[in-house]
Amino acid sequence: MSKSSIPKGTRDFLPNVMAKRNFIFETIKKSFQIYGFEAIETPAIENLKTLTGKYGEEGDQLLFKILSRGEKFDSAVESVVDKESRGAKEHHLCDLALRYDLTVPFARFVVQNQNEISFPFRRYQLQSVWRGDRPARGRYREFVQCDADVVGTDSLVCEVELVQLIDEVLTNLGIPDFTIKLNNRKILTAIAEVVGESDKMMTITMAIDKLDKVGEEGVVKELSGRGVSDAAIEKIRSLFSLGLDAKKNLETISKFVQESEVGKKGLEELEFIFNTVEKIGLRSAKLEFDVSLARGLNYYTGAIFEVKANGVSIGSIVGGGRYDNLTGIFGLKDVSGVGISFGADRIFDVMEGLKLFPEASLNGTQLLFVNFGPQEEAYCLKLLNQVRKAGVSAEIYPKKAKMNKQMTFANRKGIKHVAMVGSEEVAAGNLTVKNMDDGSQQTLTIEQLISQLK
Amino acid sequence: MSKSSIPKGTRDFLPNVMAKRNFIFETIKKSFQIYGFEAIETPAIENLKTLTGKYGEEGDQLLFKILSRGEKFDSAVESVVDKESRGAKEHHLCDLALRYDLTVPFARFVVQNQNEISFPFRRYQLQSVWRGDRPARGRYREFVQCDADVVGTDSLVCEVELVQLIDEVLTNLGIPDFTIKLNNRKILTAIAEVVGESDKMMTITMAIDKLDKVGEEGVVKELSGRGVSDAAIEKIRSLFSLGLDAKKNLETISKFVQESEVGKKGLEELEFIFNTVEKIGLRSAKLEFDVSLARGLNYYTGAIFEVKANGVSIGSIVGGGRYDNLTGIFGLKDVSGVGISFGADRIFDVMEGLKLFPEASLNGTQLLFVNFGPQEEAYCLKLLNQVRKAGVSAEIYPKKAKMNKQMTFANRKGIKHVAMVGSEEVAAGNLTVKNMDDGSQQTLTIEQLISQLK
Repeated sequence: MSKSSIPKGTRDFLPNVMAKRNFIFETIKKSFQIYGFEAIETPAIENLKTLTGKYGEEGDQLLFKILSRGEKFDSAVESVVDKESRGAKEHHLCDLALRYDLTVPFARFVVQNQNEISFPFRRYQLQSVWRGDRPARGRYREFVQCDADVVGTDSLVCEVELVQLIDEVLTNLGIPDFTIKLNNRKILTAIAEVVGESDKMMTITMAIDKLDKVGEEGVVKELSGRGVSDAAIEKIRSLFSLGLDAKKNLETISKFVQESEVGKKGLEELEFIFNTVEKIGLRSAKLEFDVSLARGLNYYTGAIFEVKANGVSIGSIVGGGRYDNLTGIFGLKDVSGVGISFGADRIFDVMEGLKLFPEASLNGTQLLFVNFGPQEEAYCLKLLNQVRKAGVSAEIYPKKAKMNKQMTFANRKGIKHVAMVGSEEVAAGNLTVKNMDDGSQQTLTIEQLISQLK
Repeated sequence: MSKSSIPKGTRDFLPNVMAKRNFIFETIKKSFQIYGFEAIETPAIENLKTLTGKYGEEGDQLLFKILSRGEKFDSAVESVVDKESRGAKEHHLCDLALRYDLTVPFARFVVQNQNEISFPFRRYQLQSVWRGDRPARGRYREFVQCDADVVGTDSLVCEVELVQLIDEVLTNLGIPDFTIKLNNRKILTAIAEVVGESDKMMTITMAIDKLDKVGEEGVVKELSGRGVSDAAIEKIRSLFSLGLDAKKNLETISKFVQESEVGKKGLEELEFIFNTVEKIGLRSAKLEFDVSLARGLNYYTGAIFEVKANGVSIGSIVGGGRYDNLTGIFGLKDVSGVGISFGADRIFDVMEGLKLFPEASLNGTQLLFVNFGPQEEAYCLKLLNQVRKAGVSAEIYPKKAKMNKQMTFANRKGIKHVAMVGSEEVAAGNLTVKNMDDGSQQTLTIEQLISQLK
């Protein structure tokens, strides 16, 4: 007898959870399609060299690496101890690794299939990724990413459409109150440039990001501690007054970065997005300009997106941004792209917490035929076939059993209607149907039952 | 610059192929649901010890094994050379492996979640599996399995329903001509028993299986060469006359196995399935009793299923059977189950070969707005929003470009309608819409266009 457990940080999904997850995935996919994005899939396993060096040193360590097989393994294992570092040893023994995100495989895909696809290429991809992270609440070693990207154009129309798409998906999911935060990497670059500390962009950005938590003096202390000059800090202070009003913030930033070329470009981009979105209108999202938003500083070059569900203490549920050189690592230059990624697990937690899953989306089997024995079973199998042909999910308890047992089964599986066809019903050509919600019973013909259930 | 290629035996799926694959998967899922099966998912990675020893020695070698991480790897690699065999070395270095099929993880799932699920448990699962097989035409290292199983009952109603379910799925996919072959492991056991060669069941079964290819004398020669007695061979000869008529075959077999207890049981099972299916009726499948059908002899204990698409030279597209001790390996005894597995890649090949994919299922974006420049773009973005709100997949070319380039884009992406909104149309409040199939043009209001596209 083997032990039956799963690897830490992974999950079995039971039917009730699957139904909820599928509601999220289907809603996302549907909206992606309406916006003209097309599905692609890439293999779960990539050549190890495709993935290493793409996620920083820490990322390399979190890759799940797959052992070479057969004689290749035999010969590698003989000389593995001679290799110096852990990394070198791992590379010596392994040839493949599990996908760590969808972005690098997508970049590889675009380069490899560049003659097959039409640019600008709008693709979506919902697939699992794996990371050898320390598991924690809400952090898993296997989880699904839901990405939509447009590559092969630097048009800001794409940013506008992604804002609309986020609004569309989260509204369709029924999330009642959420804010799309927008920033631009060029503004962050400009701020550091304008205060004369271009090489300290990351430091300044990260300090400002903490304003909420540590207050003005805290930020000043951090900046000063990290070697930012007093003159620069004095200038940065004027940013502390930024609130949530996008228009006002844009004005403040406009004055701040007016002498920076890159700053003016960033501002122009932000203004285009805000103005165009305003003209089109959003269904329910709030759109904010948040100059402290600082995700993906290693790769984003323009817009930066993040979405927060308001009133729940769960981190961002969508993230994204523009990257100007996605495919450069695989030898294809000048392919600009912009994309967003929905965090399905966090969205699940938000929806579960707020009880947002619509009941209709969670229904499995609608009708169970009770099994009274071989005679009635043979009769019911024909009725069952008729019900299924009409598109109604139905089943029969596969063997005669005590009524109580069959009712308990229906209850546990969440089946709302139970058909009882005993010898009387067979003779009369009808069914006794019990509603499991309120316990009421009806005598119906099969046609009446079908039209009720449809 | 890294090299951008994928591991051998794996595939990138481009949008046009994804649309076809999704048509298959969605059709299968839909039918599974109508039959009361519920979705579950298990992790792609399982503990190595959960999988090893479950697929025979060859299977163990085909598992993709995942290296232990961090210090666990460091300490393992130091002493790996001391381990004797390849297997021991691999186990020393690895803690996880990729799923090899859906059956063993499902058994593990049932045992681990036995208090959460209701028996009889009808589950379906569509997930990828990985095997380090030598890649060949139609054989991949990563592929999707589509399984439906009922566990926790030995009722033959389940076998009947699985025959119906196969009929349902393949009819819905539009496969014009296919045969469900049915056999029973108990009959195979009985044949060997009746001819006095119980220990040569596999040999006899496999020899009979070759009747089509090598003829009667070929089978006799093989049986004789493998030590089956002349008396036994003489008795087996009477099976050579079996044709395709299920009823006639059942009669022949009935006489043949009448002195075998297990044979009579097998016959009873087959008769129940054939008679019940006959009463209910099938939509388009042919159902045959094929005594030479011999898949899964290591685990199937009752019914054995296999489906062949007629008129195409592609192997079986569905397989399955009953197993009486699925979960025994994980310590839960007496859980009988029966299941089927659809081979999506082979079904894809059949459908592609016969051009069976319905055009409607393959449509992506329905409408493209041509981009004439910033003014028209701003105007079109509002119309685009209106079209999408109506549930029509639509997009705008994200930047002004030559008409020819935008039309080529629409053509390559298979977009059927292109909306041209220049300054004239903006002034008149209408759109010029080109049908890309026949080149015809219409002038429409946005409302008219939407009602045409819906």
